[in-house]
Amino acid sequence: MDFELRILGSSSATPSANRHHTAQVLTIGNQYHLIDCGEGTQMQLMQYKIKHQRICNIYISHLHGDHYFGLAGLLSTMHLQGRLTPLHLFGPPGLSEILSLQFKYSGTNLSFPLIFHELDTAYHKKIFEDKQITVHTIPMEHRVPCCGFVFREKPKPRPLIKEKLSGFLTPPQLVRLKWGEDIKDEQGNIIVRNQDVTQEPKRSRSYAYCSDSRYKPELLPYLRGVDLLYHEATFLDDMRERATYTFHSTALQAAELAAAAKVRHLLLGHFSVRYKDLTPLLLEAMSVFPHVDLATEGSIFCITEQ
Amino acid sequence: MDFELRILGSSSATPSANRHHTAQVLTIGNQYHLIDCGEGTQMQLMQYKIKHQRICNIYISHLHGDHYFGLAGLLSTMHLQGRLTPLHLFGPPGLSEILSLQFKYSGTNLSFPLIFHELDTAYHKKIFEDKQITVHTIPMEHRVPCCGFVFREKPKPRPLIKEKLSGFLTPPQLVRLKWGEDIKDEQGNIIVRNQDVTQEPKRSRSYAYCSDSRYKPELLPYLRGVDLLYHEATFLDDMRERATYTFHSTALQAAELAAAAKVRHLLLGHFSVRYKDLTPLLLEAMSVFPHVDLATEGSIFCITEQ
Repeated sequence: MDFELRILGSSSATPSANRHHTAQVLTIGNQYHLIDCGEGTQMQLMQYKIKHQRICNIYISHLHGDHYFGLAGLLSTMHLQGRLTPLHLFGPPGLSEILSLQFKYSGTNLSFPLIFHELDTAYHKKIFEDKQITVHTIPMEHRVPCCGFVFREKPKPRPLIKEKLSGFLTPPQLVRLKWGEDIKDEQGNIIVRNQDVTQEPKRSRSYAYCSDSRYKPELLPYLRGVDLLYHEATFLDDMRERATYTFHSTALQAAELAAAAKVRHLLLGHFSVRYKDLTPLLLEAMSVFPHVDLATEGSIFCITEQ
Repeated sequence: MDFELRILGSSSATPSANRHHTAQVLTIGNQYHLIDCGEGTQMQLMQYKIKHQRICNIYISHLHGDHYFGLAGLLSTMHLQGRLTPLHLFGPPGLSEILSLQFKYSGTNLSFPLIFHELDTAYHKKIFEDKQITVHTIPMEHRVPCCGFVFREKPKPRPLIKEKLSGFLTPPQLVRLKWGEDIKDEQGNIIVRNQDVTQEPKRSRSYAYCSDSRYKPELLPYLRGVDLLYHEATFLDDMRERATYTFHSTALQAAELAAAAKVRHLLLGHFSVRYKDLTPLLLEAMSVFPHVDLATEGSIFCITEQ
């Protein structure tokens, strides 16, 4: 199953000619999860030939325009193209009110059910779950209510080693083996030891999206061991004071958090327009955490099950 | 003085990969008048190196998203870049309420005065005037309140033929000559005939922007003789019924209006995504009115004083 992140925008609030506002598409299996939706997201989706029909959920981290001004346009286009499939929208208080007002004045009655889930951005909470994944909020520290999101695959079944299985096991017993149980007789004696007939399951992958935030080490418990961590890095560390004042982070701070949380891979994004060349941000982060990349427009990051 | 139109977007509501939503910049002298502001307008302004600091007025024709979803983003960027100059915003009822709600939730207190002028889209009314131009609304016929705009240079002074002027004329008399008056003595006798000492003034140029509308011949009086007429042409005429049903126009209808109004030049825009090649729309219009162009992204139309 695919577990793949595509970056649509890397810019902080003031855009530049070749950087777009924040938006990312996380592909899990055959469904797209759209994370933030800055102005121009629908054009970026077209640019990378990502069909918006396959977006099942949209997550908006906060109500600064660079994270959601593309949402009303994207929803309008879905409507104009006759979408029928329900769409789940997760966002802070106020988002639903803004969209309703825009649709009232445009006389739009959406062609599909838009199911709005209002987020309490101050807590770590499960907001979505299906057969394959869970999504939790991560409380950010920003100038307006803001949260990140962590996407985790659920534990996967242990593959059975067929040649080691005897014929007398029933289907329910096989299911129990897949989920790690031993098989016991009526007296409670183990008759099949799980570790003898199963293999280690495939890894359950995870992606954490840390939207706009002041450096916040309290996030550690939510980020520990994730495969891929996106963290904003609006500034270089020589502007740490400005970062703190504007409730943003530096590349160094993002890397320190990644190192402390022992994540596998770090992505930096949300770059200030002052940085024409992003290499210094990358190098600064690499000085404390080696596995870093820049989350620039069009880049794709695949997480494998190995 | 420049009087020049730059097209930023030519798409109707559903955008395509290489067409943007409606926005145009009319340069008059050293000021920019932004007409409609679809999603991505601020990126298009950057693309064509048009400084948004020089935008003095923004005109929004109606509250369908493809005509204004880029406005909040553009205003936010002006704010982030510390604009201080007042900005005049002309738009239909509801626009101010939508922006206020967005700015409330983003905690934005604009750095510059935004002066909102609510439009009564049902009437032809003067909404702006300065030393050089007037701007009037043109009532459109669309699914929501909608108007176009006509920009007209004011009459220009008649150049004096210096070698024909005698020395005894006072400065106030010279001013009167420039504005077409004869000079008379105290008894009312003409002592200097205007036509003997002045030349024809330079032309007063005009541009009419007809936003989304069903074909509406009642517009004729407002459009008569304008130099440049932009008229939406969402469809070819074989889809006239659909055009009427959706309150849009065909290329043929736009051209018929241009011919009847005896305009100098016609621009077609707001093209349905179904037309990959726009040539058939151009040819259809040219069959009844020869001076037609396609208002595609990046194109510039200068109106000269000759």
